[in-house]
Amino acid sequence: MISLQTYLQERSAGIQKALDAYLPKADTYPPLIHEAMRYSVLGDGKRIRPVLTLAVNEMLGGGDGQAMIPACAIEFIHSYSLVHDDLPFMDNDDIRRGKPSCHKKYGEAVALLAGDALLTYAFQLLGTLEFSERSARLIREIAMAAGTTGMIGGQLLDIQSGKNRSNLEVLDDINRRKTGQLIKVSCLAGALVGGASPEQESRILRFGEYLGFAFQVVDDIIDGNGYLFFMNEQEARKKAEMLVDKAKDELSVFKTTGEKLRLIADSILERKC
Amino acid sequence: MISLQTYLQERSAGIQKALDAYLPKADTYPPLIHEAMRYSVLGDGKRIRPVLTLAVNEMLGGGDGQAMIPACAIEFIHSYSLVHDDLPFMDNDDIRRGKPSCHKKYGEAVALLAGDALLTYAFQLLGTLEFSERSARLIREIAMAAGTTGMIGGQLLDIQSGKNRSNLEVLDDINRRKTGQLIKVSCLAGALVGGASPEQESRILRFGEYLGFAFQVVDDIIDGNGYLFFMNEQEARKKAEMLVDKAKDELSVFKTTGEKLRLIADSILERKC
Repeated sequence: MISLQTYLQERSAGIQKALDAYLPKADTYPPLIHEAMRYSVLGDGKRIRPVLTLAVNEMLGGGDGQAMIPACAIEFIHSYSLVHDDLPFMDNDDIRRGKPSCHKKYGEAVALLAGDALLTYAFQLLGTLEFSERSARLIREIAMAAGTTGMIGGQLLDIQSGKNRSNLEVLDDINRRKTGQLIKVSCLAGALVGGASPEQESRILRFGEYLGFAFQVVDDIIDGNGYLFFMNEQEARKKAEMLVDKAKDELSVFKTTGEKLRLIADSILERKC
Repeated sequence: MISLQTYLQERSAGIQKALDAYLPKADTYPPLIHEAMRYSVLGDGKRIRPVLTLAVNEMLGGGDGQAMIPACAIEFIHSYSLVHDDLPFMDNDDIRRGKPSCHKKYGEAVALLAGDALLTYAFQLLGTLEFSERSARLIREIAMAAGTTGMIGGQLLDIQSGKNRSNLEVLDDINRRKTGQLIKVSCLAGALVGGASPEQESRILRFGEYLGFAFQVVDDIIDGNGYLFFMNEQEARKKAEMLVDKAKDELSVFKTTGEKLRLIADSILERKC
């Protein structure tokens, strides 16, 4: 069995190649928009969401071809959300993934359009999924996770709450929407293309839910905000560990086939950036 | 046979009702984003795109249920594009459809998110289409029309060209992308849900192409820009009339069933706003 590190490197490389191949070439007319799209997607990135889609699909014995489509579509959606969040009247971030953020490099107008284009392109790609009831459901689920009940809703609540989160419940709700839903739907995508049974699907969904939650707690530990306004670092780390344990428990029915995904769950706790 | 005016009033009212029903209620949590989405869609609007989808579908003898889904999805996409185009660093428009534009009413951050949400929601709605190869194709076609080869590409070229369009060819290209593609795909949507034959589909596509072009020329006559930099009003009107004639020619195979759509094409020339 290959090590987790080798596995993650291999999958990341495969995802990077697929993202590059799916995106229009940089010289496609009009070039500026395609350059900006590629700039925003193809930099360094942990690719945690597409890795989850591929790993869930593999756990179920699914082939690679179909899983790569939602994996990359979700990564395009994640990338668009970063481009729009970085805009001056949003989080106003000048640096993203170690490079100037999209609007710093291309200006606000192009960044707005590049984000819009990545979101649009994600659904164009999803429209190429092999045709089944499950594909149609997957399109709806991804749209819901990215929409006002999910990511966009979380972003709005985040803006409204300002830096002063009144209580832990509000913070949990924002995180569940802003980060959790897209991570959860990444797992669901793997379940749907991998042909999960209803029972398997429920477990994978709960796995994704706990994992998304843990991911955000670790994010806050790294950034020194969020949960650290309500607890100290040790308590936050305990919370994350407990969530990862709960996530792994959901995979107990998958004996050896679930091993890789359990290791991925553990690796969430090791993140340093 | 009912008059065109009555027909358009009835269809617009039906579309308005469907848009209202499909959109999340204004008090859905978090309410602010849903309010902003509804504000941006439910004002006055000509609803030319959804009317075209319904009318093409009717011409082919299709039922109403399925056509309303892409009709409203395309109107959501059109609405999102207006919200984003109105932003200060884009066209900086304070008034839209006789009311303060979305960012004037809700601020830039909420307007950005409301636009993102309408685009996302359009695809969520398209994911509810009755499941067929045609639905999957329709999702791809709408995404392409809204994407970098269509609307977003046109918007980018528009920004890059500034107010000084160097020549008529550039202007034609911008318009074909920025306005033409979405009008064309509105017609295609009616063809696909209405069960058009390949021959019928080609004609409907060309109809949509000429009509979208005519629509933009009339827009420029009303706004006193665009084509009026290259020709006088009389010449521009002649150009629009020629395009509408070409559009109607494509429908000649549809004898009496095509009558309504030919009248709609004529009505493009009568637009005053």
